[in-house]
Amino acid sequence: MSPIVSGIVPPIVTPLHADGSVDVASLHRLIDHLLAGGVHGLFALGSSGEVVFLDDAARAQVLQEIVTHVAGRVPVYAGVIDTQANRVIQHVRAAEAAGVDAIVVTAPFYAICGPEEIENNFRAVAAATSLPIIAYDIPVCVFKKLDAAMLVRLGSEGVLAGVKDSSGDDVNFRRLAALNAAAGHPLTLLTGHEVVVDGAYLSGADGCVPGLGNVDPAGYVRMWDAYQAGDWAAVRAEQDRLAQLFEIVFSVQGKVGAAAGIGAFKTALAMLGVIESNTVSTPMRPITDEPTLDSIRSILTTAGLLA
Amino acid sequence: MSPIVSGIVPPIVTPLHADGSVDVASLHRLIDHLLAGGVHGLFALGSSGEVVFLDDAARAQVLQEIVTHVAGRVPVYAGVIDTQANRVIQHVRAAEAAGVDAIVVTAPFYAICGPEEIENNFRAVAAATSLPIIAYDIPVCVFKKLDAAMLVRLGSEGVLAGVKDSSGDDVNFRRLAALNAAAGHPLTLLTGHEVVVDGAYLSGADGCVPGLGNVDPAGYVRMWDAYQAGDWAAVRAEQDRLAQLFEIVFSVQGKVGAAAGIGAFKTALAMLGVIESNTVSTPMRPITDEPTLDSIRSILTTAGLLA
Amino acid sequence: MSPIVSGIVPPIVTPLHADGSVDVASLHRLIDHLLAGGVHGLFALGSSGEVVFLDDAARAQVLQEIVTHVAGRVPVYAGVIDTQANRVIQHVRAAEAAGVDAIVVTAPFYAICGPEEIENNFRAVAAATSLPIIAYDIPVCVFKKLDAAMLVRLGSEGVLAGVKDSSGDDVNFRRLAALNAAAGHPLTLLTGHEVVVDGAYLSGADGCVPGLGNVDPAGYVRMWDAYQAGDWAAVRAEQDRLAQLFEIVFSVQGKVGAAAGIGAFKTALAMLGVIESNTVSTPMRPITDEPTLDSIRSILTTAGLLA
Amino acid sequence: MSPIVSGIVPPIVTPLHADGSVDVASLHRLIDHLLAGGVHGLFALGSSGEVVFLDDAARAQVLQEIVTHVAGRVPVYAGVIDTQANRVIQHVRAAEAAGVDAIVVTAPFYAICGPEEIENNFRAVAAATSLPIIAYDIPVCVFKKLDAAMLVRLGSEGVLAGVKDSSGDDVNFRRLAALNAAAGHPLTLLTGHEVVVDGAYLSGADGCVPGLGNVDPAGYVRMWDAYQAGDWAAVRAEQDRLAQLFEIVFSVQGKVGAAAGIGAFKTALAMLGVIESNTVSTPMRPITDEPTLDSIRSILTTAGLLA
Repeated sequence: MSPIVSGIVPPIVTPLHADGSVDVASLHRLIDHLLAGGVHGLFALGSSGEVVFLDDAARAQVLQEIVTHVAGRVPVYAGVIDTQANRVIQHVRAAEAAGVDAIVVTAPFYAICGPEEIENNFRAVAAATSLPIIAYDIPVCVFKKLDAAMLVRLGSEGVLAGVKDSSGDDVNFRRLAALNAAAGHPLTLLTGHEVVVDGAYLSGADGCVPGLGNVDPAGYVRMWDAYQAGDWAAVRAEQDRLAQLFEIVFSVQGKVGAAAGIGAFKTALAMLGVIESNTVSTPMRPITDEPTLDSIRSILTTAGLLA
Repeated sequence: MSPIVSGIVPPIVTPLHADGSVDVASLHRLIDHLLAGGVHGLFALGSSGEVVFLDDAARAQVLQEIVTHVAGRVPVYAGVIDTQANRVIQHVRAAEAAGVDAIVVTAPFYAICGPEEIENNFRAVAAATSLPIIAYDIPVCVFKKLDAAMLVRLGSEGVLAGVKDSSGDDVNFRRLAALNAAAGHPLTLLTGHEVVVDGAYLSGADGCVPGLGNVDPAGYVRMWDAYQAGDWAAVRAEQDRLAQLFEIVFSVQGKVGAAAGIGAFKTALAMLGVIESNTVSTPMRPITDEPTLDSIRSILTTAGLLA
Repeated sequence: MSPIVSGIVPPIVTPLHADGSVDVASLHRLIDHLLAGGVHGLFALGSSGEVVFLDDAARAQVLQEIVTHVAGRVPVYAGVIDTQANRVIQHVRAAEAAGVDAIVVTAPFYAICGPEEIENNFRAVAAATSLPIIAYDIPVCVFKKLDAAMLVRLGSEGVLAGVKDSSGDDVNFRRLAALNAAAGHPLTLLTGHEVVVDGAYLSGADGCVPGLGNVDPAGYVRMWDAYQAGDWAAVRAEQDRLAQLFEIVFSVQGKVGAAAGIGAFKTALAMLGVIESNTVSTPMRPITDEPTLDSIRSILTTAGLLA
Repeated sequence: MSPIVSGIVPPIVTPLHADGSVDVASLHRLIDHLLAGGVHGLFALGSSGEVVFLDDAARAQVLQEIVTHVAGRVPVYAGVIDTQANRVIQHVRAAEAAGVDAIVVTAPFYAICGPEEIENNFRAVAAATSLPIIAYDIPVCVFKKLDAAMLVRLGSEGVLAGVKDSSGDDVNFRRLAALNAAAGHPLTLLTGHEVVVDGAYLSGADGCVPGLGNVDPAGYVRMWDAYQAGDWAAVRAEQDRLAQLFEIVFSVQGKVGAAAGIGAFKTALAMLGVIESNTVSTPMRPITDEPTLDSIRSILTTAGLLA
């Protein structure tokens, strides 16, 4: 019922030149890399896309380039991440102008809010656009967990069309899937946790939004295809391989959070020749220390991605 | 390599009389119910066993009754839960006296501790006993997450023999399983999250410690057997059924935490005729409101446990 | 040494029409009310100013109106609150255009950051403007506590000129004051906790940014004057009176966080005839229930503000 | 109205021999040191007393030695810290046997509890003893904040006689003081935050429980006397001096929490010749690194405590 696609929808990173400007040529190559891997959609301007580090001009540029280069081959979803509805709606206008297929909206953040404001925020954005809305559940960034019953209720009312669950709460996710199924499946449920996607499939996920899918999109597509075929041994083996690949993030020394995660993805993509530079946005600094670079290179080699 | 059993090891609840004393007859019936369900071990005095609500005499009585009534048919593991090593070791002596097969130890709590003290605490307990030790990772109670690398290191050194993971961190659990496998599997890894056990099996869990297993031990054993047989469709179907059964906890009105969870398990067991009363320890109060009782009865009926 | 003023600098609320647009006439009256109360500066677009609820156009309008109407009688400081440096700098440009005297910058938020990124973020903003910078320590919104030693170091280097401390961590605030004094007092230290300003003065605060100062600016100025005169009995008595006045916030029923706090301030200001409407921004809803309105009216009367 | 004394009530540390046993001779000297400093009461087996690290025998020994050596010169209050009422009451019996004047009880911990269980827990302990009860608000250890209205209500009913506030929430503390005053002052309110006691006095504290008071009891008594005399300049100067002395805790390298705090207090007391050894309980390790020892020595010298 939902207009949101099932399958693999990587949150595409935003390649940057050393001066911080968007590296369009690298972005095009990255899109080609993802489409060649067989992904079913793209999520632009997500957390992995450094959305909160980019100013409005850069955000608009990224969306325009992605929509144009993808040219309808897969749907493009856009993060319209900002603190509260009035500001989110500014980004919605830019997303509409770029021609995306759906938008991704978090709970409001910075100001302290309760359940009433969280629900009102989704309703206010929905009232301002005809684009389908994917709710983005990411408490590690907004410090609020989206309530499963509220999500399904908004799905049934047509306010929401999907959920990207990056909450790390697998117990709650299974309950969300059960409630969604009982309500006739109004929501497409996508997990954001790239190392336990197999378990999310068992719980009822309709797909995933793997940051690591920037590096190895074909791996996630193979896991999806095996899931569709009911070949759980293959699902599990592929997930184990990808979990080992995710060690590129844990191998980063002296950095935490976005600087480690996005930094590792970009470093791997630069090593693979997909993007030009592993530059990350201010105030983050790129990974440059040799021990980390050696680790990442070694992990990519073990995973069969680097000769 | 680990002396800790694989499979289903329910954290047995502690039946109480209305005056708060241990209901031995109900405890015996509950043990029979669990063994009849085919469980592979019992975990006494866990969080579900109300360990932190019981005084030392009640703890000793519970252990003695369980060990005696089980009579070696399955191994019995005992929670020796207390704030710091000196106090934990008091409980270890009681567990040794009762003749349990292993003990379960959390990170130290109440006092603010760092990684050094967490590791030293496990070492101090291990130095005081020859019983195998299962590390109990339960940040929702002790507000510290056990580090996966530390756990595997202590496993390789023989300090630890297993982990009960109730952290809710499935991303970390898969990493723990990978590190444990790479180290030669020194640790038996048991998940405590009864509604996503199927995903934990995919990640490499060696079994589970399901609180809900008090109510439906046979269901968890069937899921385990299906997993051993590689029948993932059956695993998933059984887990979905058990996840629906877990709604007895979410259906509790006006209570949170232990009062809701243990309260629901005991209420269900009383409805099933396994235990006499749904009494819980001071300062908790039992579930007595009709809407909650109706919900629990209805869920048990739907799950096929109640006629 | 710091260009930032000492004394009372209320975080001015943003009056709104019922349709959510800025109520300029009410804003002018509110400024007059604050200046008549004797305040030493104004902080526009703070948390109380609903900064994160306002879109860019509304933010610019608010700054322009405040700077123009104040007309240099007191300095005006502007919150340039956004997730990361690139976006903050967009707001800095608007603040510069409006002619404010300093800007107020938080730690980066939404993306997970470490100490390196927090410090780099302040440095990046400082490199982009010649306006003095006040660091805004508000962990309840950004979920990071600013390190006292870092703040004083950046003060000594000229990167920062002041701190607004809304951390609620009075132990740390005294330490910050001691470190700042030992470094030659490079930072003006303002507390944001309107009910314990007297204690902050004892600890070494140079002033305060009281949200409640919108309602009773003269009270905070009297407390400041008593502090300057060394009359601690008067300081304490005034603070006790103002703490009772703050009960307007605790008396709000069915709302939390910003909806309760800003909602109560605006409701009180509307009752006092200073602003037209107690409208708050989407997704918040204004206070309309009679019990809360009665409580606020009663507290204002007891405090001597309403006849 | 409360039977709990006002003034300075240090949470006495527990001196240990190198083997971890209680060092009775040092404990006697420490008591003499505190009484010579003029303190108004002693709090035994608090967090600073390593209560959660001591087994039952050590706890009983400490209480017995303190009560006997104090011999009625000041009241002695005893921490009866454990997870839940049934276990707390075991410690109450030992405290009664030792002859203490009041007991100190926290919110229940480890098990997840709601407001109903927190209140019931205090009631259950009160029903089991005739000793006055001081509620210990220490969310950093038990991860629950005690509600001010609940505390005053239990005070008015005679369930509680006092509060030790170590919550670090000065905003809430002033509100607690106001509610307590409005109810006729049923509770003696003691702050646990040794570096902002002056502010707590302004807010209405009846005294303090300073861990640092082990090291410099006379300083805290001088500050109290100045407060009683209304000499706020002297209060503030003494508090500033004591805040500088507290830097012994911040100067500890490589340790956090209890190991840093209690470790620093004991190291200072050993340097001052009051106790024999700076040994701390397993799993903590004592401070032995020269840079930290040098810092502590230097801070003690600057504070005028060491020649």
